[in-house]
Amino acid sequence: MTTLQNVIDGIQPVSGEWRRRARDYMANLASPPGALGDLLLLAEQLAGIKQTLKPSVGSKAVITMAGDHGVVAEGVSAFPQDVTPQMVANFVAGGAAINVLAGVAGARVMVVDMGVAADLSELAKQGKIISYKVAAGTQNMAAGPAMSREQALQSLEAGINIAGKLVQEGVELLGTGDMGIGNTTPSSAILAAFSGLPVEQVTGRGTGLTDEALENKVRVIQRALAKNLPDPADPVDVLAKVGGFEIGGIAGIVLGAAYHRVPVVVDGFISSAGAMLAKKLAPAAAEYMIAAHQSVEYGHRHMLQELGLKPILNLNLRLGEGTGAVLAMGVVDAAAQVICKMLTFEGAGVSRNDSEVCF
Amino acid sequence: MTTLQNVIDGIQPVSGEWRRRARDYMANLASPPGALGDLLLLAEQLAGIKQTLKPSVGSKAVITMAGDHGVVAEGVSAFPQDVTPQMVANFVAGGAAINVLAGVAGARVMVVDMGVAADLSELAKQGKIISYKVAAGTQNMAAGPAMSREQALQSLEAGINIAGKLVQEGVELLGTGDMGIGNTTPSSAILAAFSGLPVEQVTGRGTGLTDEALENKVRVIQRALAKNLPDPADPVDVLAKVGGFEIGGIAGIVLGAAYHRVPVVVDGFISSAGAMLAKKLAPAAAEYMIAAHQSVEYGHRHMLQELGLKPILNLNLRLGEGTGAVLAMGVVDAAAQVICKMLTFEGAGVSRNDSEVCF
Repeated sequence: MTTLQNVIDGIQPVSGEWRRRARDYMANLASPPGALGDLLLLAEQLAGIKQTLKPSVGSKAVITMAGDHGVVAEGVSAFPQDVTPQMVANFVAGGAAINVLAGVAGARVMVVDMGVAADLSELAKQGKIISYKVAAGTQNMAAGPAMSREQALQSLEAGINIAGKLVQEGVELLGTGDMGIGNTTPSSAILAAFSGLPVEQVTGRGTGLTDEALENKVRVIQRALAKNLPDPADPVDVLAKVGGFEIGGIAGIVLGAAYHRVPVVVDGFISSAGAMLAKKLAPAAAEYMIAAHQSVEYGHRHMLQELGLKPILNLNLRLGEGTGAVLAMGVVDAAAQVICKMLTFEGAGVSRNDSEVCF
Repeated sequence: MTTLQNVIDGIQPVSGEWRRRARDYMANLASPPGALGDLLLLAEQLAGIKQTLKPSVGSKAVITMAGDHGVVAEGVSAFPQDVTPQMVANFVAGGAAINVLAGVAGARVMVVDMGVAADLSELAKQGKIISYKVAAGTQNMAAGPAMSREQALQSLEAGINIAGKLVQEGVELLGTGDMGIGNTTPSSAILAAFSGLPVEQVTGRGTGLTDEALENKVRVIQRALAKNLPDPADPVDVLAKVGGFEIGGIAGIVLGAAYHRVPVVVDGFISSAGAMLAKKLAPAAAEYMIAAHQSVEYGHRHMLQELGLKPILNLNLRLGEGTGAVLAMGVVDAAAQVICKMLTFEGAGVSRNDSEVCF
């Protein structure tokens, strides 16, 4: 049995018993019933995941998975492929949005080379990034499979391993992120493969395509799907045919998080594609996910629907890197602190409203 | 000339020149144009307010204004009036939602007795709260004016003074909050007075009214408006006739913030009523406001429309205290850090996309 199968088999649904206990406990917090809205739902989820009324998310990490995509040869991105390693270098230098926003959240940033089309071995040797490099970029999915089935499994297991190591080091809240020029294209293809929605309905402008370039991108995805015929009943096949190494890595992070009973904040469009793969492999994994935000990228709402998640933020973001995930971590933190630290009506000596409450 | 008039006359529009400079500068940050969405708009606002490309919001404070309302005699709240001083005691004990969430945001909590119907002088003497008590609760606005014009001015000037002192102490980001059993009733009345909307459209369930109690609340507000005929062209008259001491205090905080060129995060329904008064008194004050969240309280969307603000969060909150304000401060912080700390394309050595970008 592979590591992947072990992990899939080991993922348990989130504890309904602990969810109930959290709900009952929070009904006594010194505030009108339900007045803290979605924070209470988040706190309940955290309590269910961690099986405690004091769920700590103090130690946080975001994993920014980087990979390149052969399909950029078809002109699907507004930026050249060189930007992927350049941005990895920017992450290492600490000057990217993910560094700045992770700093605000108090989250550690781990940058992983899942398959950048450049030699990053020096950065890996220096310990500035982690290398799980599957290959120097995927193949052009418009002409054939993006990767082999073995490579797909390898990328999933990389994510699982990384999540496992971080949990072992004490990380209590994981976040996903991505960097990869062209990676909205495989993400849209994955969504189309799973949902059956027309490609036009799941494809957006990425980093800023013109109308003409967007039409081309739609045609490229249609060709990739027609050429490879990914099997929606076999998520590994979908990943291999029309996915990406960093997307497989993100799916692995999500599976690893669920296996270790750690909540995972899913960033935007690319991360949600990874999360969809994880859910298809292990449906209970979705109970460990927290959707960071509603991306501007067209089609993201369909992904959130497929995942059954309500996003925390709606700030018109479309950057990736894990930026939405770390921004949302502030709200997740707040939810955990509400259940951990607020006084109950009894503790605070506050009168209750014992009349019937109608909503 | 009163302090109020001095402050109103001293409020300047936010610098368009600095807004432009911030926009130009951020167009060079190492990320696709506009990809950070609303964070960029927030950063631009902060830069305009503070007239710098490095707007610091490191030192934060939320002011929770407490007051009671004679109109509770009409059965407009699900909770008894005693809860106001009990919750003030809970704020002092550190066990309320505002304490917990301000802790996450790194914001100081200042609790102000603007007019609680209980003797809080011991807490004030101990320095645990600040007293600007106008009176022990307003009069019942269904039977006559909630307060005199002098009391309305006193409550506005209290907020102005508090904001001034906090700014002098180095606070760079202010947040508003409220505590006062029954205070959605005057807030709805203020909205109805200014907007001319029917009372049914601006009145909600507060802390949890039944259908029957909600109908009563609507009738009480209708009576208060008919009895007092507040003049929408005279905001001080509106505050006096159908307002509250803590609502006047919040309006004063907002005016003081704008006067001192400090951004102010406006919490939910009650705070937005205060912000509306501030905007009516000094239209440019609205440029210093940041709307924290979209409250569940029915009618809040109309207030945000009147204020011309887009809320940062939509988490189904309806608690008050300033809880939404401190939650949103995390995002405001993030926006400030984006403009202060991110590298530009040149600084990071990242290739640009110089093709036409169509959105």
